[in-house]
Amino acid sequence: MIMPEVEVKEAERFMVESLVAAGAPLTEAKAHADLLLHADTVGHFSHGLNRLELYINDIQSGVCNGNAKPVILKETVATAWVDGCEGLGATVGNFCMNLAIEKARECGVGWVAVKRCNHYGMAGYWALKAEKEGLIGMSFTNSAAIMVPTRAKKSANGTNPIAMAAPATGGDSIVVDMATTTAAMGKVEVQICKGEPIPEGWALGPNGKTTTDPQVAFDTGRLLPLGGFEKTSGYKGFGLSAMVEVFCSGLSGSRATHNVPLWTYNQTEAPNLGQCFVAIDPGCFAPGFEERIADCLQHWRNMEPVDPSLPVLAPGDKEKNNAKATTARGTITYPQAQLDSYKRMAESIGVRPLEVYVQ
Amino acid sequence: MIMPEVEVKEAERFMVESLVAAGAPLTEAKAHADLLLHADTVGHFSHGLNRLELYINDIQSGVCNGNAKPVILKETVATAWVDGCEGLGATVGNFCMNLAIEKARECGVGWVAVKRCNHYGMAGYWALKAEKEGLIGMSFTNSAAIMVPTRAKKSANGTNPIAMAAPATGGDSIVVDMATTTAAMGKVEVQICKGEPIPEGWALGPNGKTTTDPQVAFDTGRLLPLGGFEKTSGYKGFGLSAMVEVFCSGLSGSRATHNVPLWTYNQTEAPNLGQCFVAIDPGCFAPGFEERIADCLQHWRNMEPVDPSLPVLAPGDKEKNNAKATTARGTITYPQAQLDSYKRMAESIGVRPLEVYVQ
Ligand SMILES: NC(=O)c1ccc[n+]([C@@H]2O[C@H](COP(=O)([O-])OP(=O)(O)OC[C@H]3O[C@@H](n4cnc5c(N)ncnc54)[C@H](O)[C@@H]3O)[C@@H](O)[C@H]2O)c1
Ligand SMILES: NC(=O)c1ccc[n+]([C@@H]2O[C@H](COP(=O)([O-])OP(=O)(O)OC[C@H]3O[C@@H](n4cnc5c(N)ncnc54)[C@H](O)[C@@H]3O)[C@@H](O)[C@H]2O)c1
Repeated sequence: MIMPEVEVKEAERFMVESLVAAGAPLTEAKAHADLLLHADTVGHFSHGLNRLELYINDIQSGVCNGNAKPVILKETVATAWVDGCEGLGATVGNFCMNLAIEKARECGVGWVAVKRCNHYGMAGYWALKAEKEGLIGMSFTNSAAIMVPTRAKKSANGTNPIAMAAPATGGDSIVVDMATTTAAMGKVEVQICKGEPIPEGWALGPNGKTTTDPQVAFDTGRLLPLGGFEKTSGYKGFGLSAMVEVFCSGLSGSRATHNVPLWTYNQTEAPNLGQCFVAIDPGCFAPGFEERIADCLQHWRNMEPVDPSLPVLAPGDKEKNNAKATTARGTITYPQAQLDSYKRMAESIGVRPLEVYVQ
Repeated sequence: MIMPEVEVKEAERFMVESLVAAGAPLTEAKAHADLLLHADTVGHFSHGLNRLELYINDIQSGVCNGNAKPVILKETVATAWVDGCEGLGATVGNFCMNLAIEKARECGVGWVAVKRCNHYGMAGYWALKAEKEGLIGMSFTNSAAIMVPTRAKKSANGTNPIAMAAPATGGDSIVVDMATTTAAMGKVEVQICKGEPIPEGWALGPNGKTTTDPQVAFDTGRLLPLGGFEKTSGYKGFGLSAMVEVFCSGLSGSRATHNVPLWTYNQTEAPNLGQCFVAIDPGCFAPGFEERIADCLQHWRNMEPVDPSLPVLAPGDKEKNNAKATTARGTITYPQAQLDSYKRMAESIGVRPLEVYVQ
């Protein structure tokens, strides 16, 4: 696979201009580009440039309203029920997480549930928004049904991610950001590109049995919940996705995960996803929170590894290491096929194509 | 294995009298017996009568103060930081969950973190306390370090359970209550009793490699996080246990999980566990919450199963089914060896031994 490099700034320019060309206001286009750029920076390429065209299509087809402003439907000092009004992921995410942060500053906790949302990318991006303010941040979203509940033949739940970020001293943090399936579909796609099999316990084939063929797994759309099969407690991943459902569609009144349509290039209906944003102020609890989080981080990172070449990582370290490398390099690597396809999109919407970095 | 039956009422009588004989006040002994009896009723025998002697020893040695009353150290309308004062699990659990419920009634959310706790049994029991009031309940606790972080040789985290319960129409509910390891140590013990191996991916042996020998797994004390090995995303279970740590020791200032001593029959030091209790009022969000939860439950339960003899279960159904069976039978089944050992304990503390039910 040829992997050309693109300067971070150039990737940002392209994302912003494309979103604006599709009809999003500049501020929202910039906010949304920041969300996608974060994913590419920390190495979650499935949620970065890779998804731009889906967002562009959604704006163009009217499934996503680039100009929407979310509306608070009900609130208390600690909670809010919000209508996302089918706005861009970043528009709704920023509105709701800012609201949760404000509430946490006022009374210690902010719990915000929102309906009529579009896809909001990496759940962890939203948790980190609160973490940067010295708070614990959490975020959850439901998504199209590609997880098989334990014992079932077909899919019924989304990969419904859970994200939690907590600040430690010295700008450090614990960041947990995970789909509640064993593997996200993006990882299956990576195996297709590499031409390598997937491990048992990631997905079922059409016969209801485990498959190691990533193409079969992709086409069938039946990912196993975290834990895999019943004997290795796959029902726990299913339970976690059910918990996310309670916080998202349960509280917000959005579509339930089993009714969410797959995200495709010719979406005709708004997905009406449910999302949830939480901020908690550690200052309302025992003094020394950041020191205690730092102590846990240090303890884990200093543990003796089974394989000396694979050091023990704390949750969030992989993404931090990737971000450091991206920043040092100043470029992001994309597959040539992706750049080719974005060249076609650029032409069709009248935007200057992505410029490949030449040393 | 001989499995005699004991009437539910008789099990309760024995638990209450034993706790009182050890030094707990009657109200607290009753509350704690209710917690243990719930575990036996829903089929989580590891957390019921099985643990009574550990609690009794803790009270007798002074590690647990049966007369303690928890104290609020700091609070807002939505949050509280509490000192558990080394009280009984049920004393601290009832105090903190009642406080969270009160706060949720007032402002939509109650978030309570507590230090200096003893073991509080099934986390789900506490989440259900809020669920019975029409609220979403959550509870978390840290525990002794018997989980191996991904890539590490030794254990550093507790089995740190996550519990969430949400009400549906008609008295129904979703109940997620799970250790963040693939399997709880109680399940390893069950395999020892049965003389059967454990599946790969549950635990490591002393050489840092997976073991299928339950005795080796028990003696080594290195359970794998939910997900198992790294290629099947075991780091997600580790991440979830880290999240529980943030809510428990992080917020409360209790001992961090990597410093929590194992729970033994000759405890000399208070464990100073951290716990967290949350209540959320769905009434502050979109109307129709219980109907939406019921719709999810119905969708899952009606799915076609892979194996027709194994119907798809919603999270919490296993325990509901067990509770129904226990109530219909009116008795709980215990291994003879357990009854023998409790006979010795009864004699030593001067309580009438458990009476076996004779049809
Ligand atoms: N918006 C949506 O609908 C949606 C749906 C699913 C997933 N997502 C996003 O996709 C992204 C990828 O999800 P994923 O489940 O593939 O994540 P992942 O499996 O790559 O990582 C999950 C978590 O584990 C941590 N981790 C990874 N390796 C580790 C190790 N060896 N030791 C300790 N911790 C380790 C990471 O830091 C991260 O916090 C996330 O950002 C998620 O929010 C979004
Ligand atoms: N106090 C502590 O320190 C501590 C530590 C660890 C665990 N615990 C408790 O131990 C108990 C057992 O934990 P566990 O992890 O062994 O639980 P488990 O694996 O038996 O069940 C976990 C969850 O999965 C659900 N479930 C089970 N089978 C299912 C299926 N086929 N389909 C759908 N859902 C299914 C259950 O209803 C439950 O909600 C829990 O009550 C937990 O709180 C306590």
